[in-house]
Amino acid sequence: MIASAPASAANLGPGFDALALALERFIEVEIEPASKLIVRSEGEGAGLSDNATHLAARVAIEVAGHDRLAITVRSEVPVARGMGSSAALAVAAAAAAGSPDPLAVAARLDGHPENAAASVIGGLVSACVIKGHVRVVRLPLDEEIEFVVVVPERTLPTKSARQALPSQIDRQDAIFNIGRMGMLVAGLADHRVLAKEATEDRLHQDYRAPLFPEAPALLKALVDGGARASCWSGAGPSLLAMCGPGEAAAVATHAGLALDAEGVPGQAFVMRADRRGLVVGEAARNLHRSVERRA
Amino acid sequence: MIASAPASAANLGPGFDALALALERFIEVEIEPASKLIVRSEGEGAGLSDNATHLAARVAIEVAGHDRLAITVRSEVPVARGMGSSAALAVAAAAAAGSPDPLAVAARLDGHPENAAASVIGGLVSACVIKGHVRVVRLPLDEEIEFVVVVPERTLPTKSARQALPSQIDRQDAIFNIGRMGMLVAGLADHRVLAKEATEDRLHQDYRAPLFPEAPALLKALVDGGARASCWSGAGPSLLAMCGPGEAAAVATHAGLALDAEGVPGQAFVMRADRRGLVVGEAARNLHRSVERRA
Repeated sequence: MIASAPASAANLGPGFDALALALERFIEVEIEPASKLIVRSEGEGAGLSDNATHLAARVAIEVAGHDRLAITVRSEVPVARGMGSSAALAVAAAAAAGSPDPLAVAARLDGHPENAAASVIGGLVSACVIKGHVRVVRLPLDEEIEFVVVVPERTLPTKSARQALPSQIDRQDAIFNIGRMGMLVAGLADHRVLAKEATEDRLHQDYRAPLFPEAPALLKALVDGGARASCWSGAGPSLLAMCGPGEAAAVATHAGLALDAEGVPGQAFVMRADRRGLVVGEAARNLHRSVERRA
Repeated sequence: MIASAPASAANLGPGFDALALALERFIEVEIEPASKLIVRSEGEGAGLSDNATHLAARVAIEVAGHDRLAITVRSEVPVARGMGSSAALAVAAAAAAGSPDPLAVAARLDGHPENAAASVIGGLVSACVIKGHVRVVRLPLDEEIEFVVVVPERTLPTKSARQALPSQIDRQDAIFNIGRMGMLVAGLADHRVLAKEATEDRLHQDYRAPLFPEAPALLKALVDGGARASCWSGAGPSLLAMCGPGEAAAVATHAGLALDAEGVPGQAFVMRADRRGLVVGEAARNLHRSVERRA
């Protein structure tokens, strides 16, 4: 069986650990019966751990109940950049292994339910875990909004990013994020009301900035370059710009200059939101190739 | 000049200090030139402070720049019950006094920007204050959702309710509310996905429960009685039930029984959301009377 799942950007500023947006970069996992475990990987993350410790193998073995599997992973999603690669991988692997509930499997084994939710249903989602079950709602996403993803050539493991966060916060900071989240949800539903304040955050971005000191300047450069709003993508170091219709190409160009100015190796990509989410079966293979051709 | 503004329910569970919902109960303020300040009040809150200390007088004097005003207030909104009466009053008074920006005036003098925003634009709103200015977005509200407001015969001043809140909170509690807010925004846009968990909150309701010890049992009774979800209305003590199509009447009946069972004097009202917000001019007078007739 073959399955494909999109990358995702979580948090989106105020929506910490809840919001996620599926992006048109894919991880494809193909699983066939075999006499023993074989793991092959191509593209992003290729060769990092082609054995039973690979997340795709752990997920597939859990779902199948045995390890007599030949697993092939083809990825367009950079690893440990805050683009939800592990969640997309877990979702695609669970589906390719025949799981009836890839979201539950991915959330349990990978631990990023909002990314996994975006990878499963596509579009803009809000997720939370209630009594051990992932509850997902889809939120409206203006089709005219374009995105730019800035991907620095450095990794920032989510675990380190999470350790940077305090366990106690000011109540006012929570209220701040709740108010901004209202603005963001409205702005993502209608780019005409999307404002730069909508992605302001007091719960994670500033705490994580020491792990990526150039981030605040780059986020500002994205807005100065024409983006409606900008934020960290997940736990970073990738950054996301939300742009109005026809505005992303110029923002991406500006972002490239900003990376140079800050001395940060990396690239800026125009990306569309993915609205299909998880695709299972031969259509997944075509989906992946169609995107490869377009790129 | 005459103006009318609707009541509102703020917070709605997770959306603390951000979300508010306009409700079809109105405060009408009529202001005419006079040789000296005259304040008359009818209906809810009548006679409480018919002088220069009345919020309508303070607002009108600020807007007009003098106190040679005859002010008449007619209110259907109980005072100090968490139904946004002071914000609706301030909005209507500012408009009746000729303010070009009743929202800004009301937010500054009354201090509840989210209630004021709902009273001005109607429907479901999210508001926050950015650099001294109230920023408001409208969020989608399913027309089929019906509401029940439980109004205990006791007051709970917002100031006391706010003093009950800690200044520091667990980061996890903020994340909890952010996730629930995503569910709530989706559920209020489409009753088919509105679930009782969507109004769960960890930032204010539990802290305020000692001020209204029967509240948790009443909130549960609303859901047991058929409501999709329930929450405090603003800082309480009013409670709000969100109901599916055709379900509010039965929930209101059940709520009346629950008030009796808990020994709390009060009433439960079926209410529709108001979608017009502030109305200025003679249409405001007709609006108020039309609702009186219907009631």
